[in-house]
Amino acid sequence: MSRTVSLAVIPGDGIGPEVVGEAIKVLEAVTASGDVVFEQTHYSLGAGRFLETGDVLTDDDLAAIAAHDAILLGAVGGTPGDPRLAGANIERGLLLKLRFSLDHYVNLRPTKIYPGVASPLAEHGDVDFVVVREGTEGPYVGNGGTIRQGTSAEIANEVSVNTAYGVERVVRYAFEAAAARRSKLTLVHKTNVLTFAGGLWKRVVDEVAAEFPAVTVDYLHVDAATIFLVTDPARFDVIVTDNLFGDILTDLAGAISGGIGLAASGNINPSGSFPSMFEPVHGSAPDIAGQQKADPTAAILSVALLLEHLGLADEARLVNEAVTADIADRGAEARTTTQVGDAIVERLASAS
Amino acid sequence: MSRTVSLAVIPGDGIGPEVVGEAIKVLEAVTASGDVVFEQTHYSLGAGRFLETGDVLTDDDLAAIAAHDAILLGAVGGTPGDPRLAGANIERGLLLKLRFSLDHYVNLRPTKIYPGVASPLAEHGDVDFVVVREGTEGPYVGNGGTIRQGTSAEIANEVSVNTAYGVERVVRYAFEAAAARRSKLTLVHKTNVLTFAGGLWKRVVDEVAAEFPAVTVDYLHVDAATIFLVTDPARFDVIVTDNLFGDILTDLAGAISGGIGLAASGNINPSGSFPSMFEPVHGSAPDIAGQQKADPTAAILSVALLLEHLGLADEARLVNEAVTADIADRGAEARTTTQVGDAIVERLASAS
Ligand SMILES: CC(C)[C@H](C(=O)O)[C@@H](O)C(=O)O
Ligand SMILES: CC(C)[C@H](C(=O)O)[C@@H](O)C(=O)O
Repeated sequence: MSRTVSLAVIPGDGIGPEVVGEAIKVLEAVTASGDVVFEQTHYSLGAGRFLETGDVLTDDDLAAIAAHDAILLGAVGGTPGDPRLAGANIERGLLLKLRFSLDHYVNLRPTKIYPGVASPLAEHGDVDFVVVREGTEGPYVGNGGTIRQGTSAEIANEVSVNTAYGVERVVRYAFEAAAARRSKLTLVHKTNVLTFAGGLWKRVVDEVAAEFPAVTVDYLHVDAATIFLVTDPARFDVIVTDNLFGDILTDLAGAISGGIGLAASGNINPSGSFPSMFEPVHGSAPDIAGQQKADPTAAILSVALLLEHLGLADEARLVNEAVTADIADRGAEARTTTQVGDAIVERLASAS
Repeated sequence: MSRTVSLAVIPGDGIGPEVVGEAIKVLEAVTASGDVVFEQTHYSLGAGRFLETGDVLTDDDLAAIAAHDAILLGAVGGTPGDPRLAGANIERGLLLKLRFSLDHYVNLRPTKIYPGVASPLAEHGDVDFVVVREGTEGPYVGNGGTIRQGTSAEIANEVSVNTAYGVERVVRYAFEAAAARRSKLTLVHKTNVLTFAGGLWKRVVDEVAAEFPAVTVDYLHVDAATIFLVTDPARFDVIVTDNLFGDILTDLAGAISGGIGLAASGNINPSGSFPSMFEPVHGSAPDIAGQQKADPTAAILSVALLLEHLGLADEARLVNEAVTADIADRGAEARTTTQVGDAIVERLASAS
């Protein structure tokens, strides 16, 4: 008897459809035996859809997506500065709306310097860490406002909201992740300046730490953390941090570890009350869309995270191994998006 | 007739006194002719003072410091986690209090890869940019709070306050700086998420840009900016950004350009209503304090910024040249804090 997984696929804008196409090819190849069947429903969402219909994400869209077992997303967002998009905020209205509505409180972003990758930091030893970024609070909540907008007396505020409830659950997840890895957890915040939010994060980490005596805990201010990411990335195992700091640190982590083209992520709801969503960290890159220039590796590695999340550990391992082997063999010659996907599919075929 | 400058010196904690000592030696050497006389008043402030007296910065301290023409600061802050400092926040109560009270709305942080510096990015061409970080608003205002503190129902908020008044003056400064350099300005923010604050920043930049038609303007989200700082730092000329993003980007900029030991900064009040303050970007590093291990170069380059600010362009140039020559000649052998200061003083002596 085969297991069926109902998968929502949101290719999105720009290079999103190209990289998702390759990711789906890999997903189908690794499940070719038929033990698990992914039933896909494609949702046409993003800047393109908005330009056609005026909708970003309707209640019906959201309800339909929420009914799946998992979500694979490419990238969303139109060309920056496109005047036709001025009235819409695809990022807030679609991507963040999904993360918040589906309670994706763990934004999981692994970083690894793969053998063979040309990274300025490749000589820094084994770089293999994961950022556990809070996904439903902090400066991302949108609780701000502006008065006297458009005048020289305008005041625009943004409120970062942090709750013990929200911080505790993501910190606990991070400790569990650390316990299953190299047992080191680094809290990144800016407690010396953001004393209210920072005080809460610090207290919760101290409290949860008492339950994980085998995990070593340290703390870095976010500014110092950027330095260590460049000078000594091997020092990190699990980083736990807030929504905004996590956003910044993971792009930097991508840059130092061989490029954002390799950075995968999972927006995870560990309770399972809603489907989790997997997506490359990179954006829609409209400037190179449709040119077969995008590297689908991040999307393919996101499929590995998806498989892992669904308990399909063997399939996840196979995808990771195929990608690792492909990266190790990459020469200087550029390949098309499809060529990268095909090469990884081929390795999967010969591995089985 | 000689000009007299009344200088407040705040050596601070940790390595602060060591690096300030060398910076003062350089200041005295470059003004040895006597045309300008720096009258120094030393203020004992920081974690050390707090532990002795319980005071962080009294109203009298502040009034006395505000009466000077300029301020040179080393670094403040005790050992992280020191329980005796639990009740005090030296950063907020001293450093940020000075920046806010003295209306240091421009936090100027130049980055340059000096010839001879071992940077993983040295092959990236001419890296020479300046971050104009807003210094008196944003998430740094301390307008937050917490309820049900210490309980599992705690809510801790931080409010980022952004005013057209505050944004406009720093953006204008940045455009003027760009016009006097390579005429390129990059706004860094996170307008797609922080739509209220981001909208204000974007609007003000667009408006001021109209007055500087020769300056090319572009925009990067803060996460993308960290990537470009690593992969293509030569693309930047002037970056203008908010208080928190500026904090993060300038530590990263230090790391990629040869280390935070070379990063100088000025907290500038361009109106002159209060004295400006010059300080290395690095912290007090209590772990290496008193060991002659700290690199005083950032403090010495901060003296160059101070001289520049006071209109002493020749003296500023001499210090910059001496530092540049010293950096170019640095071998692999470690020198003590004093040796670095002495070497730069010697170069100044032989230059005149
Ligand atoms: C597109 C944007 C809203 C998003 C974020 O800021 O979280 C992106 O940068 C990311 O990291 O997934
Ligand atoms: C010490 C701290 C308050 C300060 C800041 O965050 O501004 C420091 O990191 C800096 O960059 O000068």
